[in-house]
Formats: sequence, structure tokens, C-alpha cells
Amino acid sequence: MADQPKVRVAIIGATAYTSRETLRWLLRHPQVTIVALCSRRDPQPHIAEVFPEFTGRLDMRCEAIDPAALKGRADVALLCLPNGVTMSYVPTLLNAGLRVIDFSADYRLKEPAEYQQWYGKVHTDLANLEHAVYGLPELYRERIRTAQVIANPGCYPTSAVLGIVPLLKAGLIDPHEVIVDAASGISGAGREPKPEHHFPERHENFEAYKIGEHRHMVEIERVLDAQVRGGKTSVIFTPHLVPMERGILSTIYLKPVQPVSAEHVNQVLAEAYDGEPFIRLRVPPPRTADVAHSNFCDMSARVVKSRIIVLSAVDNMVKGAAGQAIQNMNVMFGLEETAGLLA
Amino acid sequence: MADQPKVRVAIIGATAYTSRETLRWLLRHPQVTIVALCSRRDPQPHIAEVFPEFTGRLDMRCEAIDPAALKGRADVALLCLPNGVTMSYVPTLLNAGLRVIDFSADYRLKEPAEYQQWYGKVHTDLANLEHAVYGLPELYRERIRTAQVIANPGCYPTSAVLGIVPLLKAGLIDPHEVIVDAASGISGAGREPKPEHHFPERHENFEAYKIGEHRHMVEIERVLDAQVRGGKTSVIFTPHLVPMERGILSTIYLKPVQPVSAEHVNQVLAEAYDGEPFIRLRVPPPRTADVAHSNFCDMSARVVKSRIIVLSAVDNMVKGAAGQAIQNMNVMFGLEETAGLLA
Amino acid sequence: MADQPKVRVAIIGATAYTSRETLRWLLRHPQVTIVALCSRRDPQPHIAEVFPEFTGRLDMRCEAIDPAALKGRADVALLCLPNGVTMSYVPTLLNAGLRVIDFSADYRLKEPAEYQQWYGKVHTDLANLEHAVYGLPELYRERIRTAQVIANPGCYPTSAVLGIVPLLKAGLIDPHEVIVDAASGISGAGREPKPEHHFPERHENFEAYKIGEHRHMVEIERVLDAQVRGGKTSVIFTPHLVPMERGILSTIYLKPVQPVSAEHVNQVLAEAYDGEPFIRLRVPPPRTADVAHSNFCDMSARVVKSRIIVLSAVDNMVKGAAGQAIQNMNVMFGLEETAGLLA
Amino acid sequence: MADQPKVRVAIIGATAYTSRETLRWLLRHPQVTIVALCSRRDPQPHIAEVFPEFTGRLDMRCEAIDPAALKGRADVALLCLPNGVTMSYVPTLLNAGLRVIDFSADYRLKEPAEYQQWYGKVHTDLANLEHAVYGLPELYRERIRTAQVIANPGCYPTSAVLGIVPLLKAGLIDPHEVIVDAASGISGAGREPKPEHHFPERHENFEAYKIGEHRHMVEIERVLDAQVRGGKTSVIFTPHLVPMERGILSTIYLKPVQPVSAEHVNQVLAEAYDGEPFIRLRVPPPRTADVAHSNFCDMSARVVKSRIIVLSAVDNMVKGAAGQAIQNMNVMFGLEETAGLLA
Repeated sequence: MADQPKVRVAIIGATAYTSRETLRWLLRHPQVTIVALCSRRDPQPHIAEVFPEFTGRLDMRCEAIDPAALKGRADVALLCLPNGVTMSYVPTLLNAGLRVIDFSADYRLKEPAEYQQWYGKVHTDLANLEHAVYGLPELYRERIRTAQVIANPGCYPTSAVLGIVPLLKAGLIDPHEVIVDAASGISGAGREPKPEHHFPERHENFEAYKIGEHRHMVEIERVLDAQVRGGKTSVIFTPHLVPMERGILSTIYLKPVQPVSAEHVNQVLAEAYDGEPFIRLRVPPPRTADVAHSNFCDMSARVVKSRIIVLSAVDNMVKGAAGQAIQNMNVMFGLEETAGLLA
Repeated sequence: MADQPKVRVAIIGATAYTSRETLRWLLRHPQVTIVALCSRRDPQPHIAEVFPEFTGRLDMRCEAIDPAALKGRADVALLCLPNGVTMSYVPTLLNAGLRVIDFSADYRLKEPAEYQQWYGKVHTDLANLEHAVYGLPELYRERIRTAQVIANPGCYPTSAVLGIVPLLKAGLIDPHEVIVDAASGISGAGREPKPEHHFPERHENFEAYKIGEHRHMVEIERVLDAQVRGGKTSVIFTPHLVPMERGILSTIYLKPVQPVSAEHVNQVLAEAYDGEPFIRLRVPPPRTADVAHSNFCDMSARVVKSRIIVLSAVDNMVKGAAGQAIQNMNVMFGLEETAGLLA
Repeated sequence: MADQPKVRVAIIGATAYTSRETLRWLLRHPQVTIVALCSRRDPQPHIAEVFPEFTGRLDMRCEAIDPAALKGRADVALLCLPNGVTMSYVPTLLNAGLRVIDFSADYRLKEPAEYQQWYGKVHTDLANLEHAVYGLPELYRERIRTAQVIANPGCYPTSAVLGIVPLLKAGLIDPHEVIVDAASGISGAGREPKPEHHFPERHENFEAYKIGEHRHMVEIERVLDAQVRGGKTSVIFTPHLVPMERGILSTIYLKPVQPVSAEHVNQVLAEAYDGEPFIRLRVPPPRTADVAHSNFCDMSARVVKSRIIVLSAVDNMVKGAAGQAIQNMNVMFGLEETAGLLA
Repeated sequence: MADQPKVRVAIIGATAYTSRETLRWLLRHPQVTIVALCSRRDPQPHIAEVFPEFTGRLDMRCEAIDPAALKGRADVALLCLPNGVTMSYVPTLLNAGLRVIDFSADYRLKEPAEYQQWYGKVHTDLANLEHAVYGLPELYRERIRTAQVIANPGCYPTSAVLGIVPLLKAGLIDPHEVIVDAASGISGAGREPKPEHHFPERHENFEAYKIGEHRHMVEIERVLDAQVRGGKTSVIFTPHLVPMERGILSTIYLKPVQPVSAEHVNQVLAEAYDGEPFIRLRVPPPRTADVAHSNFCDMSARVVKSRIIVLSAVDNMVKGAAGQAIQNMNVMFGLEETAGLLA
């Protein structure tokens, strides 16, 4: 292991919260070198000016996003840019010989028309869209190994999909009766200050938003669709905002096709995730605090009257973003899948 | 109005959070006199020792709970005692000539066996249980006027029931397909310090609890049952804890018996609550912050795919407890229903 | 009292947090009518669009700031506008026959040069600056009665000055050795979203800011100066931000000119504030939670080694802003000073 | 490095918050083996029952505290037990051949009488008290290398002392005019639920406590005393509670013996800490968020009128407890001082 060359990582969009979280993890990853921090700012800041916590820990100044300049310097680019922006960089990054892990939604929906419908933009990189792999290792580990472009999953979809897929594949549930009621900490909204995320508006407040209109609803559906023979799934998705920094809990209501016990449901989940390093089946309900600052997804199921209820908790910044990206990177570069992620 | 004698109120269980909240509201109620604060403590504290915010505002020492001593002094007792305790005081309070508003669950479930099943105690006051009125003025205003014993509703049931009943009565929804996914601030857990509500355990944490096992589930069902001809309703109830002091949001998933528009659903709600002083139909989703420290229930409905989603927000300490009790008291004593509650 | 005409109030700058807080209190004030909400927005919003909590409680649309249009309609204008803006409206409001209570700093510093130094603007209303009265009723009650222009004090100065003045007037302390270490909730920063008050930046964070450079430092000094024969006072002021919505606690370090006991210090404070309706001398240390949503200033003193420590807590939005303005208004218009403020 | 045997660590008092934090760090320390978790509970819990976050990460059940049973198994014991308890275990742990790092205050004050005065207990291990070393590596690195018993410093003293000592040693400040105004997150109060740390009491609240009476005041003084030739120092210490989980900020007011510039003060601090891996001199004021979950102490100085103000921020659970203990352990066992602490 000591002789293996380190994976050389460039962060594109280095001033985002997801970049900060990625850097925190990369700094403790033994087999990685951070070679470039790229941003669209002018002038380019030192990373410790943007995130003072890196003072004395990471002495790098940001540089312009120039894929050609990364050729031969970096093996992989982690893109922490907004939706609609990353697709303009991906082709040139690939040309420069880098593999790409994209935190945005640009490569998650396979249908260009659907992307346009939900994200309001024409997709400009159809070639790479086609072969991009949805970066949920628990579902697509083999394809991730050789992928050139990883669409790193959304935070809500990660938590929801992991709780549903094994039951769907086992034929236990009605694919048209899926309700995902989820709640997230505020870091999920990104770093841009907005009136609705001003501290006094968010503190001591709980609310639902984009009810039935959130873009992650269609992302969840498309991932589930791929698991079902024939027909499509139907998901109702209601996100809420919790006055905390990080964490997502999905409370998932599923309709069993025939009576089922909680024991059986939990058994199906346990078997599906046997050997998975980041899925933990729990007896008590999962708490976002228990997965905070970790790449774990904690999960537990109940049966209440006519429904299976699956509770699934992740840290939206880790398993829901940076940690999952690093997990994907580990798989792509033949490292131990948990490298840098368990400590 | 100036000539009307003031309603004389005794608080029983004066050291509870619900008592504190009740006192805050009574102090600004122009037609009320607080005549006694009763507690089970020994020695009896001054109320400002228990709640320093009342220093200089309410100069009263607590006294023992002695119904006989309240005879002729008080018109109504507000009972802020735990479940299972209030039923031991209600008969003697009635004998002393007081009317009773009970914050506990002791008079909410009409079936003694069901009470015993959910609360683990034999009901010892069956006579009063029978004629006690569930104190939700929007449903039972007429019966409240003359009631001797009011079962003040639970916080979660208030928020849930108000969002469901008009649609149930209008025959719009399947009574067996009701899911109430709710989240509450921590004051709902009461004043007793517990490991799970220690600040560092609760802050930056979100979790579900008592999934399908919370006592408010059966309370919601019984109130809904009373609105349906024949058969029983079936409610799945999942409460969550939010790191904030106060506020409840219920996200309610209902199955329409035939296709329906959000406009129609909101119209049915609006007509049902026309003239109700404390129900506000909203277009944007309700926020707990907007009902904090108020007796309002904010409500809004959506239709997403196969479900009606009703969002209903209350302050668990006000419309979910103290404010509702005062609203009931106003109705019982012929005062303006909003007296002391709108300012 | 019932026959007295109500005071007619216009709010200028109705979309500010201080306006919201003022409206909450005015709505429960029995001797006041809100006649106009004025803002600089275009188009003018309904107040319930700006602050949804007023839905069903206050049915008013904002209007342009037109002092002439307020002539004969309003008795007093409460100005919730930014520093440097209010002085452009005050002369015309006075001409229109209104008395003015200004929440900004424009009329707090008597020296135009000092105003310019700290606020970066030339003062344009010197005539009114001269006769404006600093609206701290505990110090200037008599002058407030007849004032045309009230400079409503800053939130930090209110908390600091009330804790220092009696000891300064009693000659107990060295006027050149005053340290005010204070901490505030985030609502004090106003409603404008800024990167540093974005929820994820503020939550789970505590920091000092503008150390020795905050404008309230000079405001505190000038108020104290006026209490000392001859020479000037010297105040070191260090504000901090606390991840909470509201509340200020000042921890004030004072140097006694000769040895003194805590008993004596508290006795001097108690005598100075005897009869004051909003000052509460406490034995345990004051907590911001105990003054939240109230117009009280809670205070307590200790002697530790070479220093007197005075702790002084207010709600920055109430005694530090809206409540104090209403207290001033009550004094100006001959109402009970506590009207609308104790309930 | 790969050939060096790992340091074998036993945690005594494994169910404390400080133990949890220590375990988090030890799990990512490459040169450490956790060999035992000892607690006083009966029956002994699995560590993942106590702290669910360790599910799947640390598969160990707690065992009784039996120093003899640790002989030959462990090289060092980290004691996370309450004040007054650890001194009963230290002699036998030493006899069993372990070195000891004690998180409690039992070995911090060298004078048994002073220990008794402040902690209310007779010290029962005078022999080890005498040779115990105060575990602040920035002051006592050399003595720590060979120490058998380390008194791991208190959280407040760490933050305060680091900000004062260089200025005291440089003769810049009056040793009798030291004011430490500090604020801490709630984890510092430990894991035991108490009424005053119940979530609804602590949230949206800020208060001072134990003003001039906190045990850390004398700890700070004794550490400072040791830096001054002759005479004693005098410290006024006022701790406050901030509604957040972790973090301490000390705002330290110092009186220069002659006029001094902020530049000079910062220069003295920078020289004193040149090469120190965990002290970061900052220009903007330090924020607790920037040191959260890290072993850094961020520091910055100002001169305001007659005072030097030093701001010093640490994470109370890391540099103020667990991280510092590991830093001490690294020094004691000849490891890289930053091992396991920078990533």
C-alpha cells in the first residue's frame, strides 16, 4: 500500500460548502494528494481566507478553472459547482485525462428532456450524459470502477433510495405507493446567503418546502425505476428544513403487496446490505446526530398498520455529498473503499 | 364588558411548562383573575422562584392542591398535571363548584379499556369521563359552553385533526388511509430533565420516536372516528423531535376517494373554517415560526400525485395547550372567544 | 381612560425586524391605533406578505413614506429605518405635526463631528439633533414627556448604561475603568441577509466582533459622560454574537474607587431603580431567557476581587428597541408608562 | 514508524462525553490500539449502546475498572472520571505499570488545602499529586515526556492560559489585573442531565454562572503564578453558557504595564508560539466554529484604550480535553506530537 502512488485530486469549485467538507476528508485520507483548488473567483483567494479552519492545515491558493492546466497534474476532478455549470467543464476535463466526480445534478437524469424540464436548461453534453454512472456504490459498484464520469447522488435521494431499493427488488412493496417525508439541515442549501436562510428566519422554525416539486423527487423515481421490471415507480417527496447545520432523516412510507412483519423487512434490508461498510441496520430509530460527520447511513424499519416505515439517516454533507464522492473515488482508483472514511 | 365579573382561575400543577405558558396568557387577559397556584411541592415555592420571568409580574406563592379550599374562590381549574394524576382531583374540584379544564389525557379517550391500554392505568373517574367534552372549539363549541369537564386536546392531535376533519366530513378522503407525519419542538416533552432531552443530545439532532406507538395516534383516531358514519378510521402517526423550543408541523398524507384538485381541497378547508378566529388558510406552506407564541393554526393543502397533502402548524404550547385551554374557558364562561388570545 | 382618544401611530420602515416587533406590541396596546405602515418598497406589500404572522391580525398594506400624507392622521411616527436615512424624514414629519421616535442612531450623538466620524455621514438635521432627547426613561423621563424627537437608545447601550449609571452617580466607581463585555442574539443585525449571518455560519458558533470599534461604544460613553461632573468617561466595549434569535447580556467590569461589598452595590442599584417598572434586581445571575419577549431589564451585581461585576440582561428587540420606543411613547402621550408592555 | 509498537490505551470512565470524544480521535490515530474500555456501570454496556455512533466502528464491551487486570495489557490510562474519583484509581494504575492522563481536576492544584477548599474533598494521593505534571504541552513539553501522571488541563484554563502566558512572561502586563470573560458550549457540563441543561432551558438563552466562584479561576491563577517571579497573579474569571454544543471563546482583558501596540502584542504571541503545531495566530477575531472538532487554539490580540484584549478560541472537547490528552500521550510515548490530531 505504501508503494502505491497517491491519487491526485483537483477540486473544482473550491469555495463551496461541499468543497470544504471534501477537503476535511481528503486531509485525513492517506492515499490522496490535493493538487489543485480551482474556483471562478477573481482574484483567487487562499483557501484559508475562504475557510479559516484550514489555516495552518492546507496552504494552497485557488487557481482558475483551466482543465488543460490540470493535464498530467491530476487524476480526478471533484466538481463542487452549481447545476448547469459542470456540464460545461466535463468534456475538457475528460480530454485532459482526468476522471470526473460531479456533485451537481447535471449527469443524474438520463433523459435530456427531463433534465431540461426540471433544471430549466438544455443539456449540452449528451455524449457524457449517456455513459455517466450514478455514484451510489451500494447499487452500482461495478460500473463505478471503470466510470469516467460519476454523477454523485443528491443528498435526499441517497437517504431515500438506500431505504427503498432492497424492498423494491424483493418485490415486497407497491412501486406506485411510495411516500418519502424527509427533513434536512440547512447546509444542504449551500453557502449563498438567502433571506430564507438568514439565521433569525431559520432558527426556531420548521417548515416544508417545494412540496411535490423538489428536483430530488424525479431523481429518486428514476433510480427506483431502474430497479423495477417494466413499469415506472411513483414517489411523493416532501422535504422539510430543520434548524440544524447537517443531517437528513427520511421517513419513508411503503405499502407492502401482502402482509409482512417488521422482522422480515429488517431481515431483507440486512441481507441486502450484508458486507456494506457504510450501511448500519439499527433497532432503535436512527438519529441524525449518530451519523453526523460520518459516511454512514443508519437505517431501521417498522410495520405500522398498512405500511412499512423505513427510517434512513445520513449526513447530507458526507454520505449525501463529500463522503460519497470519496467512496466513489476509492472504488474508481482501486483503493480500499473505506480509505479515509472510517477514521 | 367592564361590569362583567372576572373569571376566577386556579392553576393546578403550577410548576409545569404548560402552567407557565398559561400564566403568560392569563396575565394579558382582561377578564380573568388568577386566584390560586397549586402544586404538589413541599415547601411551596413562590412562582417567581420557579419561573423567574414572573418576577415583578405575578406575586403569588404556590399552595397545596386542596379543592375544598378553592370553593367559592375560583370558577375554573386549569389542570397542568401529568396523565393519571388529574383524574384523582377532578371529582373533588367539581364538588367544590369549579369547572375543570384538564391538560392531561385522562378525559380524552372515552373507552376506559382503551385508556388503560395506552396509559397503563385503570381509569378511576368513569362518571366524569362519560360527560367530559373534547375541547376543540372548532369541532365542539356548543358542547363546550356547558361542559363541566374539558379534556383539552393533545398538541399533535390538535394540529392533525384540524387538517383532516373537514376533508373527512366532506367525504373527500379514504378514512383508512391517513398518514400523519409530524414534528415537534422540545417543550412538548415537559419540564422534567431526561437524558434524551439534555441539550447536547437534542441540539443538532433530528429523529423520529414512538413510531406507530405514540398515544396521540389513538387520540387522533378517536376524534376522527366521531366524524365518520359507521366504520372506524385508521391513522398512521410518526412524531419527530426538532431542535427548537416550540412548534408543531403536521404533514398529513390523505388519499382522495376520487381525483380532486388542490383548489377544491383548499376551498373545502376554507369553507369549513369560515369565521373561525384561529384557523388561517395559507397559500405558501405554513411555518412554525409564524404561529409561535400565538393561538393560530396555519394550514395549507396541496395535491401531489395520488395524495392530498395538508400541512398544519400550531404552537404546541399555545393552540396545542395553554391557548386552547383559554379559548375553551372563554367559550365556557360566555366571554369573547378570542379574549386575551389575539393581542 | 376609556374616554381618552387613542394615540395614532405611523410606522416608517415597516418591513424591518424592529417594525415587526413594534407591531406585535402595538397590537396588544389598548390605547393605540396603527394608522399607517410606510415603506420604501415598490410595489408596496401587504404587511402579512412581509410578516406572515400578521395574517388575519393586521389587514394593512404598506404605503409610501409621505410625511404630508400623515398630517392629521397620525400623532407619532416610529422610525424603523437605517442609520443615516431617518434624518432626511424627521424635519418633514415634525412639520406635519407628528412627534418622532427614531430607532436609528441619527439623533443619539450630540456632536455632529462625532456622528460623522462613527457613521460616515454628514448630519443634515442639526436643528433637531440639538433638542432631541435620548429615550431612556429611567434617566430622562421628564424631558421625554415634552420631547418632539426621541433618539431611541441602542440595544447594547440600554443594557450597559442601566447597569452603570447608578454606580457612577453614586461615585462608587472609576469613570475611566469601565469594561462592557456583551453578547447579543442575531436579530440585532437586522433583516438583511449577509454571509456572516447565514444560518450555517452562525449556528454552533460564538465570536467577538468590532472589538473596540463598535459604534455603541461611543454611545455608551456619551450617555455616561452626561452623568459625571467634569471629565469624560472611558469605556471598553466588546460585543459578541450568540447563536440565538434575541437577547443581550452585558457583563460589566467596574473598578470601585474604594473597597465595597456586593450588598452595598446591589443596594445602590435597588434604590436607584426603586419604583421603576421595568428594572428588576435579581439575586441569581440574569438570564436572557427570563427577559425574552418582555420590556424588562434584569440586573445583578457581584464583587470579585478588585472589581464590581454588574450583569444586565434585556431583550434587544424589546427593551433594546420596540418596547423602549413604546415606553417612550407612553410617557410622551401621558399614558400609563407600562400600558401595553406588561401583559 | 510502521515497526514501532502501537501505544495500548485503556479508557477509564468510558461512558463520559470526554471518553466519546477521545474514542473518536483514537479511532483515527495510526499508532494506537484501544485495549480496554472501563466503566463503573453494572451491567457493563457495549460501547455502541452508550454511543450509537460507534456501531460498526468499535466492537467493544465495557469492563469493570480493575487496574490489576490492565497490567501488561495497556501502556496508558486515560481517566474520564469525575473530580474526586480519579485519585482513588491512580496509585493502583501506576502500580500496574500504566502511565496516567487524568481529565479530572484531581492533580491540577498542587496545594492539598487548596484542592480541598475548591473541590470539597481531602486529597488522598499526595505522593502522586507532587510529581504530577500539568499537561499543557506548550508550557511543559519536556516534563510531560517523562511524566507518570498528567493532570490534563481544564477547558477554560487551556483557552485562557495560552492567551496570557507569553505576555506575562514578556513582562508586558500587570499580573494583578487579569480579567477572563469566557463562554462555553454545553458539552462542557458533561453528560448527566440536569434541569439547567434541559434543552428548553438552554436553547435561546445566554447567561453567566459561578461568577468569581468557578473552580477554573484558581486553576488559571496557579498556572500563571508559576510563570511569574515572586508574587502571585490575580484573575477574575466569568464563565458564560452559549446555546451550542462545543467551543470556548475567552475574551481576556489585560493591563499593559506601559503603552503597547497591538502589533507588538501579536508579535510577542507569534514568537512565543513559533513552531507550535496547534496555536494559530489570527488577524480576524477567532471563531469557535473554526476550531470546532480540531485541536487548534486560535488567537488574536487587540489594544483598546487602556487594555490589551486577547481572544482565544478552542474546542472544549478537543484542545480543552480529549485532543490535549492525546497530544500529551503523543509526547509521553515519543510519537509525533500531531499524530492522529491533524487529520
